[in-house]
Amino acid sequence: MTPESRAAEFDAADPLSRYRERFNLPEGVIYLDGNSLGALPKATPAAVQRVVEHEWGEGLIRSWNSAGWFEASGRVGAKIAPLIGAAPHEVIACDSTSINLFKLIAAALQMRPGRTVVLSEPGNFPTDLYMIAGLEVQGLAERRLVESERLEEALDEGVALLLLTHVHYKTGAMHDMAALTRAAHEAGALVLWDLSHTVGALPVDLNRAEADFAVGCGYKYLCGGPGAPAFAYVAERHHAGLAQPLTGWFGHAAPFAFSDDYAGAPGIERLLCGTAPVLGLAALEVGVELIAEIGVERLFGKSQALSEFFLECLMAHDVKLELVSPPRSDDRGSQLSFRHANAYEICQALIARGVIGDFRDPDVLRLGFAPAYLSFADMAVAARHLAEVLTSGEWQRPEFSLRAAVT
Amino acid sequence: MTPESRAAEFDAADPLSRYRERFNLPEGVIYLDGNSLGALPKATPAAVQRVVEHEWGEGLIRSWNSAGWFEASGRVGAKIAPLIGAAPHEVIACDSTSINLFKLIAAALQMRPGRTVVLSEPGNFPTDLYMIAGLEVQGLAERRLVESERLEEALDEGVALLLLTHVHYKTGAMHDMAALTRAAHEAGALVLWDLSHTVGALPVDLNRAEADFAVGCGYKYLCGGPGAPAFAYVAERHHAGLAQPLTGWFGHAAPFAFSDDYAGAPGIERLLCGTAPVLGLAALEVGVELIAEIGVERLFGKSQALSEFFLECLMAHDVKLELVSPPRSDDRGSQLSFRHANAYEICQALIARGVIGDFRDPDVLRLGFAPAYLSFADMAVAARHLAEVLTSGEWQRPEFSLRAAVT
Repeated sequence: MTPESRAAEFDAADPLSRYRERFNLPEGVIYLDGNSLGALPKATPAAVQRVVEHEWGEGLIRSWNSAGWFEASGRVGAKIAPLIGAAPHEVIACDSTSINLFKLIAAALQMRPGRTVVLSEPGNFPTDLYMIAGLEVQGLAERRLVESERLEEALDEGVALLLLTHVHYKTGAMHDMAALTRAAHEAGALVLWDLSHTVGALPVDLNRAEADFAVGCGYKYLCGGPGAPAFAYVAERHHAGLAQPLTGWFGHAAPFAFSDDYAGAPGIERLLCGTAPVLGLAALEVGVELIAEIGVERLFGKSQALSEFFLECLMAHDVKLELVSPPRSDDRGSQLSFRHANAYEICQALIARGVIGDFRDPDVLRLGFAPAYLSFADMAVAARHLAEVLTSGEWQRPEFSLRAAVT
Repeated sequence: MTPESRAAEFDAADPLSRYRERFNLPEGVIYLDGNSLGALPKATPAAVQRVVEHEWGEGLIRSWNSAGWFEASGRVGAKIAPLIGAAPHEVIACDSTSINLFKLIAAALQMRPGRTVVLSEPGNFPTDLYMIAGLEVQGLAERRLVESERLEEALDEGVALLLLTHVHYKTGAMHDMAALTRAAHEAGALVLWDLSHTVGALPVDLNRAEADFAVGCGYKYLCGGPGAPAFAYVAERHHAGLAQPLTGWFGHAAPFAFSDDYAGAPGIERLLCGTAPVLGLAALEVGVELIAEIGVERLFGKSQALSEFFLECLMAHDVKLELVSPPRSDDRGSQLSFRHANAYEICQALIARGVIGDFRDPDVLRLGFAPAYLSFADMAVAARHLAEVLTSGEWQRPEFSLRAAVT
């Protein structure tokens, strides 16, 4: 049996295959970069247009009340909550992942007076490390980076916060959320999980793990659109004592009292800062609803099946590439990353064939398997292209080594 | 001559009257709240749709390069620059006004070691005061609020930054930017101007005033849509030494090198933090281009003529209301505010008649005159409605005192 014929059988048996038609997928493209920017749900253009033409154009300022703009950040957050094991009032959609990291790192430092260390790992997604650095420059934090396997022993009495990305952006390696959260708590530290490469592709249970804080990205597996608002989670037990420094008017208990003095809203709304980005929230809401409709347990099952089948196809084509991702699908997110000295050129040659993955400096070819809209046939075809690019040596053509601004 | 017939003459002679058709204005509405949320440019829906359906839907991740998404923050900033007397490379569109305030207050404190006071005035727009408070809670700033007329004498050797809103959100009173900037500099302090109620309605010249920093709002006179990205200005002379704590990956000199260590971009891009909000920037760009096409000098001229004519109409109807705004149009922004114990109810009664202004706690009726799309006829009709609401006493109907979430 060829990979293509096996793929046809898998697709015929796949209960999620019918969701593919709910997304816009360009002709001639196999899109393996949904972990960088998720595909467009077909319902999104009309939803955005309704907000622009009807709510803004006709409703004008009245739409803050009549169209539910004021509630949008909380409403979208509540729809994200079941995807990550949170209660609806523990999640809010706002700002960027970076900004939300800053709020919650600062909040954690304030909750652990006398401790200043924020512990993370080298090679974590840069913005996570840079936001710690921002507080370090302010003189309020001390950044400590320790290799993954030595994190637990680095949890000493100076550590206020352990900040980790649950699924590594480059390798797809997954941390044990429950175990690391427990270890941090035993050391008296708090934990902040970055779920950017988790949410919408695999299940996590923040509340069962007794996590303290989390953030995540709206434009990857949640399909919220380029630069979509991000989200933030705070466990309910921390709501009352939460103090974060980006105390803008939208996080005030009574923003339209126009008081000179800040008094934070009682719940998760205290994380809001400026005026809510209504257009971005409208697009994000469509993506979140669609992912929630499919269901994150089923998505993870398919994600695992897709990546396992992709590896099987590579074997069938006798492709030998160094796998950077964990070999067991239970240990990784919804991606496979391969190391090759010419990963950049190979990625470009694949794109020229319509297989869009991405390159991560210096030598990683990263292929993401967004389970909501990819098929097993996509896997078979993409693997065949990858095999042909490698065996033909076409990646050595000069045009594939030209570096543009990369994503 | 009735106010209506005078209005018809003014409109016939108004060189800006033809721009009204470039905006969507709902039937039966006279919109005097463009200083809260600007009207929808008719070109915006197609521009947003192009980004959603074509750039995102078809281009996917490739559009960061091919559709110019990476450059959008700087490109939109450069288009805002001529409206505020800045050079194109001194302005960038990103985040919210609140977030941008935090960045620049923190940057100023870092540039004035040994000084911790941020000076502002009570009753400034709340988020400006709250963002100082955020840094105060971090132990990095000391907020000092002094009445407007005593600001200059409060500029002592402890003041790192003077933070003022150029046009007051509630009263429309305008500060003398050049004089206050000079006074602050003589005292060794820096100056940050909030241009939220200025940009797109009246001209300012940041560079001629030798201002240091500025921020402003994208969703008022710039017509960028609800929750549009804001902008920030940093005078070129401060670029090299600028350090701000929201050091996200989009502000890195080489974001796709994925280094563990932050190194800020050399220019204004150092103010970027998270991934750019592409949908919001697309809508904002349309509004900015249209306002720039009309020209801010002409807009201010019309703004003054509109408000003067509105006052004349009120006189013709023998309406006596306490004017909170400065009586001379050279001393105020593009609005008129009136004090009345029942301002809330009067505002609601006007809205019921299709005249949308807004209420500002506790007793101010605020009417904004967005000069890009309002006519002199609007002034005559709105003034007549206001006169009728007051003389009929219809504002006393019980339904007009019901308080919803207000804007």
